[in-house]
Amino acid sequence: MVYLDNAATTWPKPQSVLDAVYECMKAYGANPGRSGHRMAVFAASIILYTREMLCSLFNVKDPFWFIFTFNCTDSLNMAIKGLLKPGQHVITTSMEHNSIIRPLMRMENQGVEVTIVKCSENGQVDPDDIKKAIKANTSMIITTHASNVTGTLMPVEEIGDIARSCGIIYLIDAAQTAGIIPIDLSKLPVDLVALPGHKGLLGPQGTGVLYIREGVELETIREGGTGSQSDSIYQPDFIPDKYESGTMNTPGIAGLGAGIKYLQQQDQHKLHLREKRLVKLFVEALSQIKGIRYYGLADHSCKTGIVSINIGDKDSSEVTDILDQKYGIAVRGGLHCSPMAHQTIGTEKKGVVRFSFGIFNTMEEVKYCVKAVEEILRM
Amino acid sequence: MVYLDNAATTWPKPQSVLDAVYECMKAYGANPGRSGHRMAVFAASIILYTREMLCSLFNVKDPFWFIFTFNCTDSLNMAIKGLLKPGQHVITTSMEHNSIIRPLMRMENQGVEVTIVKCSENGQVDPDDIKKAIKANTSMIITTHASNVTGTLMPVEEIGDIARSCGIIYLIDAAQTAGIIPIDLSKLPVDLVALPGHKGLLGPQGTGVLYIREGVELETIREGGTGSQSDSIYQPDFIPDKYESGTMNTPGIAGLGAGIKYLQQQDQHKLHLREKRLVKLFVEALSQIKGIRYYGLADHSCKTGIVSINIGDKDSSEVTDILDQKYGIAVRGGLHCSPMAHQTIGTEKKGVVRFSFGIFNTMEEVKYCVKAVEEILRM
Repeated sequence: MVYLDNAATTWPKPQSVLDAVYECMKAYGANPGRSGHRMAVFAASIILYTREMLCSLFNVKDPFWFIFTFNCTDSLNMAIKGLLKPGQHVITTSMEHNSIIRPLMRMENQGVEVTIVKCSENGQVDPDDIKKAIKANTSMIITTHASNVTGTLMPVEEIGDIARSCGIIYLIDAAQTAGIIPIDLSKLPVDLVALPGHKGLLGPQGTGVLYIREGVELETIREGGTGSQSDSIYQPDFIPDKYESGTMNTPGIAGLGAGIKYLQQQDQHKLHLREKRLVKLFVEALSQIKGIRYYGLADHSCKTGIVSINIGDKDSSEVTDILDQKYGIAVRGGLHCSPMAHQTIGTEKKGVVRFSFGIFNTMEEVKYCVKAVEEILRM
Repeated sequence: MVYLDNAATTWPKPQSVLDAVYECMKAYGANPGRSGHRMAVFAASIILYTREMLCSLFNVKDPFWFIFTFNCTDSLNMAIKGLLKPGQHVITTSMEHNSIIRPLMRMENQGVEVTIVKCSENGQVDPDDIKKAIKANTSMIITTHASNVTGTLMPVEEIGDIARSCGIIYLIDAAQTAGIIPIDLSKLPVDLVALPGHKGLLGPQGTGVLYIREGVELETIREGGTGSQSDSIYQPDFIPDKYESGTMNTPGIAGLGAGIKYLQQQDQHKLHLREKRLVKLFVEALSQIKGIRYYGLADHSCKTGIVSINIGDKDSSEVTDILDQKYGIAVRGGLHCSPMAHQTIGTEKKGVVRFSFGIFNTMEEVKYCVKAVEEILRM
């Protein structure tokens, strides 16, 4: 299988990730933070270890600013619903995933005012358009860090500066960038970052993270046992317990820690350059083929490892099926849970064939994909 | 290690559970329900398989009545917040875990009326007390199926009949019973059941389930990408997608399926009897020792594998530490995330030492524990 669906979940995972998950279940899989026996204490120490790995990767000083969640969607819901109140105004863009738009539509129904700023056809937002949309009751700006449809990077620094200058909370969705594009949270002017554990961070599915900058307070969307303040019927108000109720996904978090460690052990700069080179070569090769429509930015320095195309007039889902069945190439076709993004780039009818590269893809795979695309075009 | 903390999470897991999680990550760990390639399709089929295993275990006809969640706490929050609206009244008991009480305290703050029915000192609720608490605006009754502090089983059939006769939705928390006490959902008069995957069902942590009876509609607490209706910015209104947003914990769900299969392959009746016999012998041996205070019902047919005690005047956390460090026995001491339950049984000051048995515990371990308790008493 040539796996090019890394924007959905990365695969394969490093062997160390598989081993960490297995070892956790096998050797010490007790309930962290509840009981005080050695297995439970060890399980809790692994969770702290993964928080510290997150600190190291994103340059954050307090491990408790990272909250473990179910998935990136859970993180986004926690941030959006924890912050927005009826009567408040939120600004987002037309390139967002449904993990942002659908919760916002729910909040709109409850009296939150939502402005969706239109992006350009290649998926870029103009920070000035965000600025112009700000009103007296704007309390939150939400953008993706990079589109899941085109890979286009958003100008998060500029938007963050605008948000900060207006005292507005800025949430970014790092689903497509965490572990892929360097993020320095000691510098980036963002307040909340939603991250999946199972994409660029190479952890297993069932892991998500929400970074909450010091001083930002959210209402909880999930309360319950935390193993702390067990004498109280009220949710603790300190981090991370306030936001972490119920038994954590300890094996998953152990695997996530191993995934981040794997990233840290590599030359990350080299890793990113290598991925960019694959994308560049793929896009350049495709640009030589008449009949291929490529979506997004031509400038590879402003995008992630996503290459979305259409082949002639062919239906994207049909192409995806052929790639899978005839060539053993795993990609995603159709619409990508981002209806507005497809409208923005003009693919709301036929969707796109999305090739998404990961750190384990090779030049040979790129060449094989180019050959497959050429053959399908001629079919 | 003598592991007697199975009420927090079961350990060890069957080898087949570890293998299923590993195999999923290694061989086909794509994103289920998103892409259409063979790996994603296979991942989706494993999720369906686990739903079918749940159907088989709980005698449910539609696999989509089971929703996969983060953990049992997440399931409870989904049920409680999805149903209750300001102005409505909910009845619960004084034996509940904070995974019920804390969300209810949050809802109370938002205008929901909460009645907490007092249980007896051994943790039993009188169904008549529940009945008496019903008012015109009562829309929900919530009880645990068995207390996590004493193991006392609640009269869920009787309460369910009362709820049904009044048209009130009944939610049970099966954290301590799923996979441990037979539950036939084709007969039990309950509407919503919250289940952990990682306790009696033998799956990995990071897995929870919410059973939603046909016809019961909940508001969603988490919206996002579902891989379905990708052209819509609104959450789908069909099950299971309505309640399952974001990437599922595929490896965890694969492991959960293997855990349930393991249970199904055993003679479950024998398994339960064996566990009961261990508990019975342990309680009988303890009852011979002067200075041991036992909490809960003496009748073992009305309880789960939990044995909570105190040893003389000793602090329960201190006893737990000695059991761990001197004897290598893993139990939980102190308060158990259930402050009202401790008040009910009169242990809100010193907590209890909770021994919780699982299917892999042995008679030798019971004897070893009795010896340890005797020695600690004499210290």
